[in-house]
Amino acid sequence: MRMVDLITKKQHGKALTTEEINTMIEEYTAGKIPDYQMSAMLMAIYFKDMDDREKSDLTMSIVHSGEEIDLSAIKGIKVDKHSTGGVGDTTTLVLAPLVASLGVPIAKMSGRGLGHTGGTIDKLESIPGFHVELTQEKFIELVNKNKVAVVGQSGNLTPADKKLYALRDVTSTVESIPLIASSIMSKKIAAGADAIVLDVKTGAGAFMKTTEDARLLAHAMVQIGNSVGRNTMAVISDMSQPLGFAIGNALEVKEAIDTLNGKGPADLLDLCLTLGSQMVHLAGIGKDLDEARSLLEESIENGKALEKFKTFVASQGGDISVIDNPELLPKAEYQVDILANRAGYISEIIADELGIAAMILGAGRATKESEIDLAVGIVLHKKVGDAVKKGEALLTIHTNKEEIPEVEQKIWEGITIADSAAPIPLIHEVITD
Amino acid sequence: MRMVDLITKKQHGKALTTEEINTMIEEYTAGKIPDYQMSAMLMAIYFKDMDDREKSDLTMSIVHSGEEIDLSAIKGIKVDKHSTGGVGDTTTLVLAPLVASLGVPIAKMSGRGLGHTGGTIDKLESIPGFHVELTQEKFIELVNKNKVAVVGQSGNLTPADKKLYALRDVTSTVESIPLIASSIMSKKIAAGADAIVLDVKTGAGAFMKTTEDARLLAHAMVQIGNSVGRNTMAVISDMSQPLGFAIGNALEVKEAIDTLNGKGPADLLDLCLTLGSQMVHLAGIGKDLDEARSLLEESIENGKALEKFKTFVASQGGDISVIDNPELLPKAEYQVDILANRAGYISEIIADELGIAAMILGAGRATKESEIDLAVGIVLHKKVGDAVKKGEALLTIHTNKEEIPEVEQKIWEGITIADSAAPIPLIHEVITD
Repeated sequence: MRMVDLITKKQHGKALTTEEINTMIEEYTAGKIPDYQMSAMLMAIYFKDMDDREKSDLTMSIVHSGEEIDLSAIKGIKVDKHSTGGVGDTTTLVLAPLVASLGVPIAKMSGRGLGHTGGTIDKLESIPGFHVELTQEKFIELVNKNKVAVVGQSGNLTPADKKLYALRDVTSTVESIPLIASSIMSKKIAAGADAIVLDVKTGAGAFMKTTEDARLLAHAMVQIGNSVGRNTMAVISDMSQPLGFAIGNALEVKEAIDTLNGKGPADLLDLCLTLGSQMVHLAGIGKDLDEARSLLEESIENGKALEKFKTFVASQGGDISVIDNPELLPKAEYQVDILANRAGYISEIIADELGIAAMILGAGRATKESEIDLAVGIVLHKKVGDAVKKGEALLTIHTNKEEIPEVEQKIWEGITIADSAAPIPLIHEVITD
Repeated sequence: MRMVDLITKKQHGKALTTEEINTMIEEYTAGKIPDYQMSAMLMAIYFKDMDDREKSDLTMSIVHSGEEIDLSAIKGIKVDKHSTGGVGDTTTLVLAPLVASLGVPIAKMSGRGLGHTGGTIDKLESIPGFHVELTQEKFIELVNKNKVAVVGQSGNLTPADKKLYALRDVTSTVESIPLIASSIMSKKIAAGADAIVLDVKTGAGAFMKTTEDARLLAHAMVQIGNSVGRNTMAVISDMSQPLGFAIGNALEVKEAIDTLNGKGPADLLDLCLTLGSQMVHLAGIGKDLDEARSLLEESIENGKALEKFKTFVASQGGDISVIDNPELLPKAEYQVDILANRAGYISEIIADELGIAAMILGAGRATKESEIDLAVGIVLHKKVGDAVKKGEALLTIHTNKEEIPEVEQKIWEGITIADSAAPIPLIHEVITD
């Protein structure tokens, strides 16, 4: 097998065999295939795509390139959730305790990463004392005991993905459905999930700008998961405007607590119930999705979900007094309201612009070395479709800098008030095959 | 300018600016752009092509990556000929003295290279004493005096092309019209040609297997040449069967002598007169192509072309007695006739198969390190469309090995005798824009 022949094969639109894909990923990970050949292959895949079998093979070859987490010591069906990422996406903080409160084991491996805000771990670290440095044994013990635990990424998981991603980033081959799908799915599978619920975002603040692209990616990932024996389904949800009201680390923790208290934003709650009922159903609880959803709603109403959040936080060293009293969370020095410059209806809150504004405030990392300010961010008071009066507060900026002209400018670039506007539907589609 | 952005631009089918192309080639040659980014770019170019302006810019940026030969001390319009390569292509050996005999300066820089037979220099070295180690001054002096000289490639010409070609070879990006065209044209331009005649081969023995592909390549090269101020035209000629009768180094020298004597194969003579009249016309001699062709025919008839060949060979140290007596050229130990196994008409002589047979005999280099046997090769007695009787010799193998079953097998894989067959037209098209 010569790599140049495989490149030619893909370039001419032919499918690579299982053995060819396995050998290629194995040799690339071992440094036996140079980057310049792999980047040509990636570009050929960008133009010529991969069929379903190739995508599954690529995913599993990436899984096998490194360690795999063994969660077999955890009782029950381990369901993992993955979001393709967006602005103000607080779902994991709500879903983990909510779903666990019904007895579904949530063994979450999470990261920090780059973005508009920190990752799930950064957000949770807004809670004084909370930490994710758990041994594999302690992690499994906590999940078996509490049904929920979060651990930082460790071990040599999917090294082929790390190498491929770094190469894709500098060769303009990130935006390729088979490459995105295999990258996401390989990480979930290597992390030990039995079943996977995917939240594929679409719109200005998402990686997939159109619903059509989101649908292609969702289908690809669901197909991969199901063909390698992991029950997988996907929800396509809107990310043209931010999800919920809060963008920022401590601000999103507060919003998650509000939601678990039954007082969260309607869209965030709806998405959590939609994703959560799928997770519960995949775990074999409830006779159908409707019953699963009712059980989750009940768990919020009777306080069990919030109780589960407290148990989870306490077990990982966090100070649970902040859950009853979110005022104790890190707080920014200044609160600046942005006021409507006319009356009308909000027709646009471009998620990307708001996300960048939050990052400029310090809520997210622009580079790996950036320090996050857990306290800062943005809290919306209006969403698309809402009526506003002139002079009414559209949102509040939480900042530790006194002068933030750049942030205000970004926000105004993202918000439009028009004579009329309709709300944006949140859930576009549920994809199960 | 970030290389990744240029890759994205090309990937989306947009044209790169002159400045972007210049900077890219400059930085790549200097090692500032890594191979893995360039190979992604090459694959994007393979899929998305380049427009005319981009192709010219790429060509000139490759020219400027290294030294350029200054032929301004040579009087007259320097016309160079380039063939995209084939089997038994003896045209340069005939054309150089033939065209020079009309006073057109032929300052030929040539190579050895890989292939079915050696390059022009290898072939000429079949003549005892002939050498191409000339200083630049001596080379120019000889062209001014004799109108023809051949020198080996020297100096740091088009280093970007060398680097790009090595990368294309291992990343399956050789077969791309803008990349092939810019590679060929940059070398001709850097070598100092004022005008360029291209012989673009098509068919089984050529790089371009179809006439349509050959036409695209020819148009691309003619457009590049003309847009950068070098009068350029192209002839598309057949290479489904070998050109002329001889395949091999000394054997082709003998065939060239025969042709200059007016006793060469009809197809080789026709191609030489077609290409030659274009060269003569580009050099400003003769009122039209017909007159140029007549002048060339006259030069063969009156012996001036052969006389020019003798002067040329003698000036570069060669023993001209071989020209009057080609028996003195290197001779193989064995001559093996391949006989027709049935009566009929030759319907196929696949150039590639015959070329590989010649290479196995030792006529060409499989790798840079291979030693060439100047004496060996194949001489056809029949061409496609010719009638044969059973038992008649189709060709003679000239070999220094007694047992050559592999060669005979290759030859039989390449030759078909059928009930009827028509000759193959030699010249498909002449392209001037």
